[in-house]
Amino acid sequence: MKDIINVAIIGASGYTGAELVRILLAHPHVKLSVLTGDSQAGKEMGDVYPHLRFKKLPRLITIEQVDFNAIDVVFCCLPHATAQSVIAGLPKHLKIIDLSADFRLSDPEIYAKWYGHAHQAVQLQKEAVYGLTEIAREEVREARLVANPGCYPTSASLPLIPLLKAGSILPEGIIIDAKSGVTGAGRSAKQANIFTEINDGMNVYGIASHRHAPEIEQTLSRAASKSLQVTFTPHLIPMNRGILSTMYVKLSGKNTADDLRTTLLKAYEHEPFVHVLPAGVTPSTHQVRGTNDCVIGVFADRIPGQAILVSVIDNLVKGASGQAVQNMNVMCDFPETTGLQLTAVFP
Amino acid sequence: MKDIINVAIIGASGYTGAELVRILLAHPHVKLSVLTGDSQAGKEMGDVYPHLRFKKLPRLITIEQVDFNAIDVVFCCLPHATAQSVIAGLPKHLKIIDLSADFRLSDPEIYAKWYGHAHQAVQLQKEAVYGLTEIAREEVREARLVANPGCYPTSASLPLIPLLKAGSILPEGIIIDAKSGVTGAGRSAKQANIFTEINDGMNVYGIASHRHAPEIEQTLSRAASKSLQVTFTPHLIPMNRGILSTMYVKLSGKNTADDLRTTLLKAYEHEPFVHVLPAGVTPSTHQVRGTNDCVIGVFADRIPGQAILVSVIDNLVKGASGQAVQNMNVMCDFPETTGLQLTAVFP
Amino acid sequence: MKDIINVAIIGASGYTGAELVRILLAHPHVKLSVLTGDSQAGKEMGDVYPHLRFKKLPRLITIEQVDFNAIDVVFCCLPHATAQSVIAGLPKHLKIIDLSADFRLSDPEIYAKWYGHAHQAVQLQKEAVYGLTEIAREEVREARLVANPGCYPTSASLPLIPLLKAGSILPEGIIIDAKSGVTGAGRSAKQANIFTEINDGMNVYGIASHRHAPEIEQTLSRAASKSLQVTFTPHLIPMNRGILSTMYVKLSGKNTADDLRTTLLKAYEHEPFVHVLPAGVTPSTHQVRGTNDCVIGVFADRIPGQAILVSVIDNLVKGASGQAVQNMNVMCDFPETTGLQLTAVFP
Amino acid sequence: MKDIINVAIIGASGYTGAELVRILLAHPHVKLSVLTGDSQAGKEMGDVYPHLRFKKLPRLITIEQVDFNAIDVVFCCLPHATAQSVIAGLPKHLKIIDLSADFRLSDPEIYAKWYGHAHQAVQLQKEAVYGLTEIAREEVREARLVANPGCYPTSASLPLIPLLKAGSILPEGIIIDAKSGVTGAGRSAKQANIFTEINDGMNVYGIASHRHAPEIEQTLSRAASKSLQVTFTPHLIPMNRGILSTMYVKLSGKNTADDLRTTLLKAYEHEPFVHVLPAGVTPSTHQVRGTNDCVIGVFADRIPGQAILVSVIDNLVKGASGQAVQNMNVMCDFPETTGLQLTAVFP
Repeated sequence: MKDIINVAIIGASGYTGAELVRILLAHPHVKLSVLTGDSQAGKEMGDVYPHLRFKKLPRLITIEQVDFNAIDVVFCCLPHATAQSVIAGLPKHLKIIDLSADFRLSDPEIYAKWYGHAHQAVQLQKEAVYGLTEIAREEVREARLVANPGCYPTSASLPLIPLLKAGSILPEGIIIDAKSGVTGAGRSAKQANIFTEINDGMNVYGIASHRHAPEIEQTLSRAASKSLQVTFTPHLIPMNRGILSTMYVKLSGKNTADDLRTTLLKAYEHEPFVHVLPAGVTPSTHQVRGTNDCVIGVFADRIPGQAILVSVIDNLVKGASGQAVQNMNVMCDFPETTGLQLTAVFP
Repeated sequence: MKDIINVAIIGASGYTGAELVRILLAHPHVKLSVLTGDSQAGKEMGDVYPHLRFKKLPRLITIEQVDFNAIDVVFCCLPHATAQSVIAGLPKHLKIIDLSADFRLSDPEIYAKWYGHAHQAVQLQKEAVYGLTEIAREEVREARLVANPGCYPTSASLPLIPLLKAGSILPEGIIIDAKSGVTGAGRSAKQANIFTEINDGMNVYGIASHRHAPEIEQTLSRAASKSLQVTFTPHLIPMNRGILSTMYVKLSGKNTADDLRTTLLKAYEHEPFVHVLPAGVTPSTHQVRGTNDCVIGVFADRIPGQAILVSVIDNLVKGASGQAVQNMNVMCDFPETTGLQLTAVFP
Repeated sequence: MKDIINVAIIGASGYTGAELVRILLAHPHVKLSVLTGDSQAGKEMGDVYPHLRFKKLPRLITIEQVDFNAIDVVFCCLPHATAQSVIAGLPKHLKIIDLSADFRLSDPEIYAKWYGHAHQAVQLQKEAVYGLTEIAREEVREARLVANPGCYPTSASLPLIPLLKAGSILPEGIIIDAKSGVTGAGRSAKQANIFTEINDGMNVYGIASHRHAPEIEQTLSRAASKSLQVTFTPHLIPMNRGILSTMYVKLSGKNTADDLRTTLLKAYEHEPFVHVLPAGVTPSTHQVRGTNDCVIGVFADRIPGQAILVSVIDNLVKGASGQAVQNMNVMCDFPETTGLQLTAVFP
Repeated sequence: MKDIINVAIIGASGYTGAELVRILLAHPHVKLSVLTGDSQAGKEMGDVYPHLRFKKLPRLITIEQVDFNAIDVVFCCLPHATAQSVIAGLPKHLKIIDLSADFRLSDPEIYAKWYGHAHQAVQLQKEAVYGLTEIAREEVREARLVANPGCYPTSASLPLIPLLKAGSILPEGIIIDAKSGVTGAGRSAKQANIFTEINDGMNVYGIASHRHAPEIEQTLSRAASKSLQVTFTPHLIPMNRGILSTMYVKLSGKNTADDLRTTLLKAYEHEPFVHVLPAGVTPSTHQVRGTNDCVIGVFADRIPGQAILVSVIDNLVKGASGQAVQNMNVMCDFPETTGLQLTAVFP
């Protein structure tokens, strides 16, 4: 790969686009060459995001205006359902990381069931690699199109996959009680998301119907080598960033919570971004704000045969733009941590 | 009972004390005659709580200074472990509602196990009535000493008791994933609770070790007529008030989530403070901020044989001071909703 | 007046409408007979505001559907510029309290200059009484149409009027640096107001151009018996409710900050809702959350000849719906504090 | 200077210490060799700050344990009044940046008046350079001891100094109404700072008595070549980081707000961290969260002869640790922006 690559962000005016800009501005091998935002085309990025006003960035343009010949890597931050046709039309020399949900589900039927319409690029859907980097690093390395995992699925899959692979927990009865910051809802103006509706309170949503459930199930079924279903309940917390997922699992055989921790410690021993806490230490979303880290705690339940796992990520970083850059690094043969050696902004 | 009763609040300088003041100031049958606060004795309540500065309230005094002969009802808001000896020393004519955990566990051994010391008033421990008003109204009516339920236990017990009594759910495998506002941690100065440590993030604590677990188990075991254990995980949310508990239960027989909802609707049909939502409607802590209400939603899980319950309360009201006043109303033969017909403060 | 009056809230689906509902539900002389909300007509109020779901309230209807013959008092909560023509069309037997800005400015030219169009009901504009209750109680008592003051003007006028009337401060050079919670921006969905854009940060807006400036100037000019101009700068604070206004004034003659405090203490000696703090005590918006109170502090500046005033109100109560009910009480000859003896919800 | 310098942070367990760690971990010329924290000595930094748990950092030790011979640069983050004697005892080869207030006031009498005791190191007080980098770059370059400016003074001085130097505004009557996030209060456990006391409300404090007033006056008097006094009022805002200062100034001669903006644009034309906004654009603390930037807006008042300035900084970065690193870069002859080319973390 070249030393400096030209990067385009399609749909740069959303939060994941802005977060890519934040990360890539400090990436030594990236030139941010193109930013698109159809509804904001013609504006400076700094007019759309005042915190980027003092950075040198290309003006927002429409996708039609992009000369993709000059581009090496595309990050696609378009809304779900709109990314697939755009990506299908892109030149084949591009490496593409899609942050939408469009290519995450590999089964067209499951996609159609959860998204309410037939997939518009079934061939690409098959080609796409599901880019949970720690788990699929080698496929990502060879991929042309990476489906960047969802935020909730990342938070749940990183702790659960090694345990399912090792057979330490049962594939049945996994419960994921997830709590997310509000950036997960994006930047569009909805009454339900205005400050006064969310501040100083919390609620639950998407019970048994959130589209991240089949994504989690696809990932965990692969790990368990067996089709499984999970209980998944997302909650909305009055904070900007962060997901904390509390997972209730059943131990297989004579496994204990300590055994699970040992398995996870071993699985992530050489991983720079996944950290397993010692016994008795609980994670907090504050630990990962602004970073690409995932922090995992393992706890014995008082009820025999059960354990409790807790993971935290920053939904905009490891749950979106950070993992996307991690995938780009792998695809482009840069050291995987390049541009991602971030320290959490606390307090 | 008299038309106007004289009320003493012992330990009025904590949050539950201040919330009792807020509620009782508008109670037509109550005269706030005594407020104690040993460390703040001599101060005006308005110096300790600026939002009470413009109310006519007695000056804070020490417990020793109280003439209990002139008092009819005592609310005890002392910290856990300190209430029991104080209450043991009070005159017998008093009706007492204790907001600490001291008299909630009826088994001295379980108390000793979870609180790390032998109970100092075992006889009273046996006499005390566990005051979950909707469930124990008749015992509360006759009680001299009411142990006011904990905040988490209230939020979990109200939805689960009728279902366990009806046998609609299994007593095994109940998981309670609870999320609380920060007032639950009280008003004492701890580094972990300062604004900058909590704002814009969240964490989990007390996994498999929180003292509300045995309280919940005692209550639910009675309802199920069978000793049971629950999985209980509390989380700390950056909001002042509110508990949202998400409960995962296993259906018995051919019961469905709709059946559970029907059972709950029937159980709480005539209750002024417990509300069961229609199918598909999710609760929010915003709905109950400042009120004595508990709002419950019932949801089918995608996994057969399971259901998800969600309840919300204001931890300082239905989870503490409001339920305490509700108990006082019952004990004193006032209409149960007196002083408690509050509308949530939203936004 | 009758013992129970029939009240209509026009535009009940905004925050001031919902806050009127909260207050009036506990008002012993009010029957909430009509709630209108054109865009939400046909819905239950509880569908629009989940915190009102368990209250008995009339269904939302359109203005056209209202039978005003059965109504005694109308609160009009329509957006600015739309209230004037609606109110002009209402029957003459109604007492009307308008919470919009439409009738606050008595000079049609000033109105036209700041609102960008000619007033549509100039005759009513002249008739309307500016309802800062403490200052205009007698005019309010006789009024048919009350223009309820704006939130910022209320917070600034209550401390400044008595000082200008007494000549204790100069009319020149008054600076009002005001900080408001986000409910002041209403409930409409705007990107600038979503949680993630506001949480954990603050900004300034409307510098030298906010429409509350001429309203403040009109009020203060009357008090000073002299046309004056103020410097007024509003800021947006990440909190739901509350305005804190910091005011910088020049002392006249040999007046001191203590003299100002004495003047204010005297002016508000018998007022139930306006409280002047002793020297050295600073106000906080927490003190007034959910109440109709205004709390004022007076401070000497280190620079001779200057003083600093600080006032706090809840913008939705004393700054809108609470003061509106206070005006209704005066207009209907109910005790002025009826329904408004609220205790702040803290924490 | 060497390519890699050895840095010690004294008092690393406070917020400014932790923020120095965050910044310096990414500084290519710094080795974090020593972290002291007397009350936490023996602990890992990751035990004190969980967000630093996964970083390689030296264990906390006491000052007595430090071998200063191996150190090049010391950041002193001790509380006010305790830094002076510690610094007086340090070896003379060290370059020292003191983040306390101990060496900011150059006049021992003014120090004694505001801090209530005689300065313990008067000789050093004279030697110390006040390190507002943009203004005192050349003195900083030669300094052995830099007094790092306070957060409020930085936010006020950067916009006001060039205007006073140019004579565009009068030195009389400057009013600084400042609003700060809660990190400014440090990490110590005080009841007034717990989450529930601060969340969803705001207050004012230190009116006419805050110790940053004489610091601001010293700086501005130098700029104006004339002794001046300012009105300074700080407010506490429910956000973690950020200061927004609104300043009211009197124009000299025929100057306009546009002239002020032109003067500031020119003064900061080549400065990497100070940004002057175009007319009509307002700053927000969100723009600077986590960065070393100061953003300034200039506005005409409606009242002739006056203007309004607004500045924003992150109090922990440009207001403390970031400016300290900027000073270190200057003192050590590294490019001034090294380690400080940060992008704001938004949302």
